[in-house]
Amino acid sequence: MKLGRLNHVGVATPSIAASVETYRTLLGADAIGAPFDLPAQGVKVCFVNAPNTQIELIEPYDETSPIAGFLKKNPAGGQHHVCFEVPDIHAAVAHLTANGATVLGSPRIGAHGTPIVFVHPKDFGGMLVELMEEPKGAH
Amino acid sequence: MKLGRLNHVGVATPSIAASVETYRTLLGADAIGAPFDLPAQGVKVCFVNAPNTQIELIEPYDETSPIAGFLKKNPAGGQHHVCFEVPDIHAAVAHLTANGATVLGSPRIGAHGTPIVFVHPKDFGGMLVELMEEPKGAH
Repeated sequence: MKLGRLNHVGVATPSIAASVETYRTLLGADAIGAPFDLPAQGVKVCFVNAPNTQIELIEPYDETSPIAGFLKKNPAGGQHHVCFEVPDIHAAVAHLTANGATVLGSPRIGAHGTPIVFVHPKDFGGMLVELMEEPKGAH
Repeated sequence: MKLGRLNHVGVATPSIAASVETYRTLLGADAIGAPFDLPAQGVKVCFVNAPNTQIELIEPYDETSPIAGFLKKNPAGGQHHVCFEVPDIHAAVAHLTANGATVLGSPRIGAHGTPIVFVHPKDFGGMLVELMEEPKGAH
């Protein structure tokens, strides 16, 4: 296991549209993807591109969304998770589990179309960590 | 204004030493700087390098630290801020102020030795944003 690229910082928001406007106006973001729904994950997603990584804006898909609780606690939104790339998601899960970490569920397809898992925040000093298998062709 | 590199994700921790061990063991981080004190900012700092950006671990320097309140609310630690690079900190402050954002204080020297400011989380959907003048020679 070797620390990979920070693929994105996941930022929860009650409104992707309002957040996009903020990033555009205040920070000059101009490489912003089209928002899309990820109902299997319970979120709507929009990527804001910085030169070296992405901000992943996530908005609840419906009231059963896994980020609904976060937004109840933080109504304005805020940093939700960080996502690092790994070459092989199953090897990463085996490594984490062998080292006592709590991997949340089994690998499933994430916002970039490759398998992802989340690791419990208690294993990372209160930070929710997503691991994402790097896209094929990234080499 | 054009969105610059994500220089780092700032992560508050009650113990840099414990966090470094976690990043090493669980994620395979192997490019980790030496921790150093930044008393003017009230924090101890340690950079963990990913291939494309950094995690900035911050631990309170003393009980008057600006992150003491965050750690009281989140005793295990957690994501604290994100830092984007800007070519000129004074131009960035002028742009943000002109667009109604609340810049916290005046530019001061940050952990990378260049001027930084923070922008109030209310302006960024609950996310604390640091802007950092990119190091000279970065071009």
